[in-house]
Amino acid sequence: MSIWYTEKHTPHSGITIEVKKALYHAESPFQSIDVLDTYEFGKVLLLDGLVMLTERDEFVYHEMLAHVPLLTHPRPRNVLVVGGGDGGTVREVLKHATVEAVTLVEIDRMVVETSLEYLPEISAGLGDSRVSIVYEDGVKYLDQAADGTFDAILVDSTDPVGAAEALFSADFFRSCRRALTAQGVFASQTESPFYHMAFMKEVSRRLSGIFGVSRFYFAPVTTYPSGNWSFVLGQMDPGAEPRLGDGASLASRYYTPEIHTACFARPRFLVEALQE
Amino acid sequence: MSIWYTEKHTPHSGITIEVKKALYHAESPFQSIDVLDTYEFGKVLLLDGLVMLTERDEFVYHEMLAHVPLLTHPRPRNVLVVGGGDGGTVREVLKHATVEAVTLVEIDRMVVETSLEYLPEISAGLGDSRVSIVYEDGVKYLDQAADGTFDAILVDSTDPVGAAEALFSADFFRSCRRALTAQGVFASQTESPFYHMAFMKEVSRRLSGIFGVSRFYFAPVTTYPSGNWSFVLGQMDPGAEPRLGDGASLASRYYTPEIHTACFARPRFLVEALQE
Repeated sequence: MSIWYTEKHTPHSGITIEVKKALYHAESPFQSIDVLDTYEFGKVLLLDGLVMLTERDEFVYHEMLAHVPLLTHPRPRNVLVVGGGDGGTVREVLKHATVEAVTLVEIDRMVVETSLEYLPEISAGLGDSRVSIVYEDGVKYLDQAADGTFDAILVDSTDPVGAAEALFSADFFRSCRRALTAQGVFASQTESPFYHMAFMKEVSRRLSGIFGVSRFYFAPVTTYPSGNWSFVLGQMDPGAEPRLGDGASLASRYYTPEIHTACFARPRFLVEALQE
Repeated sequence: MSIWYTEKHTPHSGITIEVKKALYHAESPFQSIDVLDTYEFGKVLLLDGLVMLTERDEFVYHEMLAHVPLLTHPRPRNVLVVGGGDGGTVREVLKHATVEAVTLVEIDRMVVETSLEYLPEISAGLGDSRVSIVYEDGVKYLDQAADGTFDAILVDSTDPVGAAEALFSADFFRSCRRALTAQGVFASQTESPFYHMAFMKEVSRRLSGIFGVSRFYFAPVTTYPSGNWSFVLGQMDPGAEPRLGDGASLASRYYTPEIHTACFARPRFLVEALQE
C-alpha cells in the first residue's frame, strides 16, 4: 500500500509526497495539526492540511527569516518572533551571540507542544533560558507592546488567510514600527513571487512609508508553493549595512554572506509589477 | 472528471498538475513525446513522460541558459545550441544583436516538429534566417566540429540519463572547449542542487581544468524538481566580465543585470559539498 499526501498550491497544481506514517492529528482551538513521517522530507508539520515545514528543507526558510534581518541590525539584543510556534526561527535567532532575549508570541499552544514532542531538532531552542513564550494573538500583543521595545520583529506566519491575514495589515506593520528600537529591523514571509504576485504588490503598497526602507528577498524552499519563497525586510535605518563578516561565522546550512547580498535580486517580472 | 499528470521527482515525491486536454502523443525513434494543455501552466511538453517545459515558467530557464553565457562574451557571433529542439533557448539567443549564426543540433526531429506545431511562442525563432538546424547526436557533432568555431556553446539537454548522459562526460566537455573560440563561453543545465548534489559534484570534478573557470549558477523554475535549478558557466577567458549594461536592455521577463550578478551565490551546503 502506498499513501500520498497532496497539497494543492493552486486549484490546478500541487506537490505530492509519499507518507511513511501519520504520526499525529489533532484539532486545536485554532486549526488542525498533523505530523506526517515521509520518505523524502522526513517529518512534515501541517497546519490546516498545509505544509508548514519539513525536516529536510526547513533550514532554508528559518535561516533566511532570521539571519538577514538580524545581521542588518548593529547589535540585536531583544527579539520578537510572531508565530513560528514550531521553534525553527527561534533556533536560528539564538545563534546570534548578541541576543539576550527572544519572545515568541504564538496563538496556538498546541503547535508548540506538537513541535516539542515530534520535532525536537526544530524546537530545541524553545527551552533556552533566553526564550519566553507568550500564547496570544500576535496582533493583540503588538497593539499592547511598549514603544521602542524590540531590536527585531520576525513574523513567521501561515498563509495570509484567516487569523494570519491581520499580520499583513498596514495597522500591524505600524504597530511593529512603533514597537521597534531606533535601528530596529522587521522581517516577514511574503509568499511566492510565482503564484502570489498580487499579494506581494499589496504588501509592498501597505509597507510604503512604514519603515525607512523595505525590500523583498528570496530563497528556494522546495516544499513551499513554486519552490521559491519571498520575504520582506524592513529597516528603521535605511542606511544600515549588513554585518556580512559576522554572517560568515554563523553556523548555517543555507545562509552565507554571498547569499545575503544576492537574495535581494528581483526577477524583472516582479520589478515591473511593483512599478505598476 | 478531473485528470492529473504527476511527475515523480524522486521515488517518493513529485509535482501534480491538472490536465485540460492531452493534445499530442507520439513515439519518436528516440523517446515518447507528449503535449498536454493544463489549467495552471499552459501547454506542457513532456519527453519520456517528464516535463521539459511549460508555457508558464519556461522563460526563466531559457533566459538564464542563454543570457548569462552570451553576456559573458565580448561579442558572440556564432552560437551552438545542443539539444533544446523546442526552440526556447534559440529564441533567447536571437535577442542578442551581435549573433549572426545559431546552429541547433537536436537528435530528435520530432521534438522540433512538435514544438513548431504546438508551441509557436517557444519555437518562433527556429524559422529565423540566422538559424540552422542539424538533426544529429550532439556528441558526434562536437567530435567533428572544427577547432575554434563557436563563441558560445549552450547545452540544453534532458536529464543525464540515457542518450543525454554523454553530454555531461569529460570527453564532451573537452570537445566543447576545442570547438570554442579564444574567448568562448559554455553553459549547460546541471539539475537541482536540492536533489542532485552528487551529480553536480561529479560535473564539477569533470569540468576541473577544462575551461579557464567554471561556476554554477541558479534560477527558480517552478515545474522542475525542487523548483530551483542549476546551470554551469564555463569561460575560456577566466577574467571575462559580464556586459551588464547590455543585459539591462535585453527584452526579458526574468533576467536582469542584478540577477546576473546574484545568480552565482551558492548555498553553504553546496559550497561545503564541493569542497569535500
